[in-house]
Amino acid sequence: MKNKTGIAKTEITRVTGRVASPLNDYLVVEEPLEIRLGFSKNGARHQKPISVTMRTPGHDEELALGFLFTEGIIKSNEQISAFSRPTVRWKEARENVLLVELHDDVVVDLGRLERNFYTSSSCGVCGKASIEAVRVQGQWEHHEPLPLLQADVLHTLPSALAQEQSIFDCTGGLHGAALFDANGQLLLSREDVGRHNALDKLIGIAMQQNLLPLNNKIVLVSGRAGFELVQKSALAGVAVLAAVGAPTSLSVALADEAGMTLVGFLRNGQFNVYTYPERIMLH
Amino acid sequence: MKNKTGIAKTEITRVTGRVASPLNDYLVVEEPLEIRLGFSKNGARHQKPISVTMRTPGHDEELALGFLFTEGIIKSNEQISAFSRPTVRWKEARENVLLVELHDDVVVDLGRLERNFYTSSSCGVCGKASIEAVRVQGQWEHHEPLPLLQADVLHTLPSALAQEQSIFDCTGGLHGAALFDANGQLLLSREDVGRHNALDKLIGIAMQQNLLPLNNKIVLVSGRAGFELVQKSALAGVAVLAAVGAPTSLSVALADEAGMTLVGFLRNGQFNVYTYPERIMLH
Repeated sequence: MKNKTGIAKTEITRVTGRVASPLNDYLVVEEPLEIRLGFSKNGARHQKPISVTMRTPGHDEELALGFLFTEGIIKSNEQISAFSRPTVRWKEARENVLLVELHDDVVVDLGRLERNFYTSSSCGVCGKASIEAVRVQGQWEHHEPLPLLQADVLHTLPSALAQEQSIFDCTGGLHGAALFDANGQLLLSREDVGRHNALDKLIGIAMQQNLLPLNNKIVLVSGRAGFELVQKSALAGVAVLAAVGAPTSLSVALADEAGMTLVGFLRNGQFNVYTYPERIMLH
Repeated sequence: MKNKTGIAKTEITRVTGRVASPLNDYLVVEEPLEIRLGFSKNGARHQKPISVTMRTPGHDEELALGFLFTEGIIKSNEQISAFSRPTVRWKEARENVLLVELHDDVVVDLGRLERNFYTSSSCGVCGKASIEAVRVQGQWEHHEPLPLLQADVLHTLPSALAQEQSIFDCTGGLHGAALFDANGQLLLSREDVGRHNALDKLIGIAMQQNLLPLNNKIVLVSGRAGFELVQKSALAGVAVLAAVGAPTSLSVALADEAGMTLVGFLRNGQFNVYTYPERIMLH
């Protein structure tokens, strides 16, 4: 049922009203990816599985890179010495495990791997602590409060992403994330069954191309803009995050703190600006 | 900015074409929830934080119940002796920590809390192992292969959910999950900023009402039907899972294994059936 391009063919029954017809259709492929970290400690090499995520196969190295960066485990692409596929018993599983080897001198914060950083903050578990955790983790750029891009440019972005999302059209199951310059030129795009993965892949390839911080760029996501998408964007230094869907209370609060312009409901010639509207020129 | 009903008021700038207007708007509230487990081991009581999830406040106990059940940590509502809000330093955080106390005789599989059950399976990390892990965890009911519900009934479900989703209309940021009987009567519905949380809350309240297994019921979700949503539904014994959006390769494979009818793209008088179409009557 699977193939290499992230889509799988399947036979379905389509029901229209009371009429059923057999049909060949396409599904987005979803498979687990285990990311293992290889690192040095006390003069010896160690390996540790740190995450299993459901993703669409393809661009796994970018996904791992973006994930490790936005989780605060690595600081840059240069800290990685190699990617490899470790030997595992079953052939099918081999494509679903990625070993990321770090250089000997990279110090890994194993505590962070426990993913409990929310609870270690001074006020325990609350929105403020979540935002504080991002602030401590990132070296946010100080964005100039100057106008950066035209409203006309923003209106053009969704159709540019849709044109890129060739797979999306045939499965309806993929999230997209794209990087644009201030003139609305599409630079990079990635897609995945998981919205976080699509953005991790985009940030990963941007890191490989030495584009960070993305403080004169726009990122567009095809879905909603929840806290984690704003968090990942903030850590990559994104100036403007635009979403086709809705933001949340906490994502708006984080964008406000991070100096990021957050745009939501960008479609059909209209959008909402939640933070720093002064960065958008009307004429 | 917050209030008790899961929505927050905010001031935004709406841009239509090149015209900007200030506007009062609403956001869905997103805040972290830490679930702590209280249990007995070797004659002493222990507490362990097991999860932090971003959720919309409200129905936290149902969320915890559904989460603990679909993660395989508890088997039933009866294993819980009490819910409480532990004392934490900051008032704001107090609403975001929920302690779930288990009876003394409940044995907790701490290994499962590590969330590594994908990798402990015989074939390592692959789709088959993910499905096998669900099969081992659940006592799936053997569903009768008889017709269960009418296509006409399925067509009515999305508008019934939309009518329930009163909050959805004003923020556009909430996912919904609803439980229907085979006649299309809406029994329960829940909503949340996270699609998994909405389903966990629905399963949690169904457990409180002793409705499990849901093998003569339909569950409708407002978004897509990825692996984890099918997994949760399978563990609750759901007969028919219908989604307004797309399924994935792995969710179709799991539904097939679990004897569950999986319906996708249910909207505008049309739907796709991916597994067990014989359960749906056309007249």
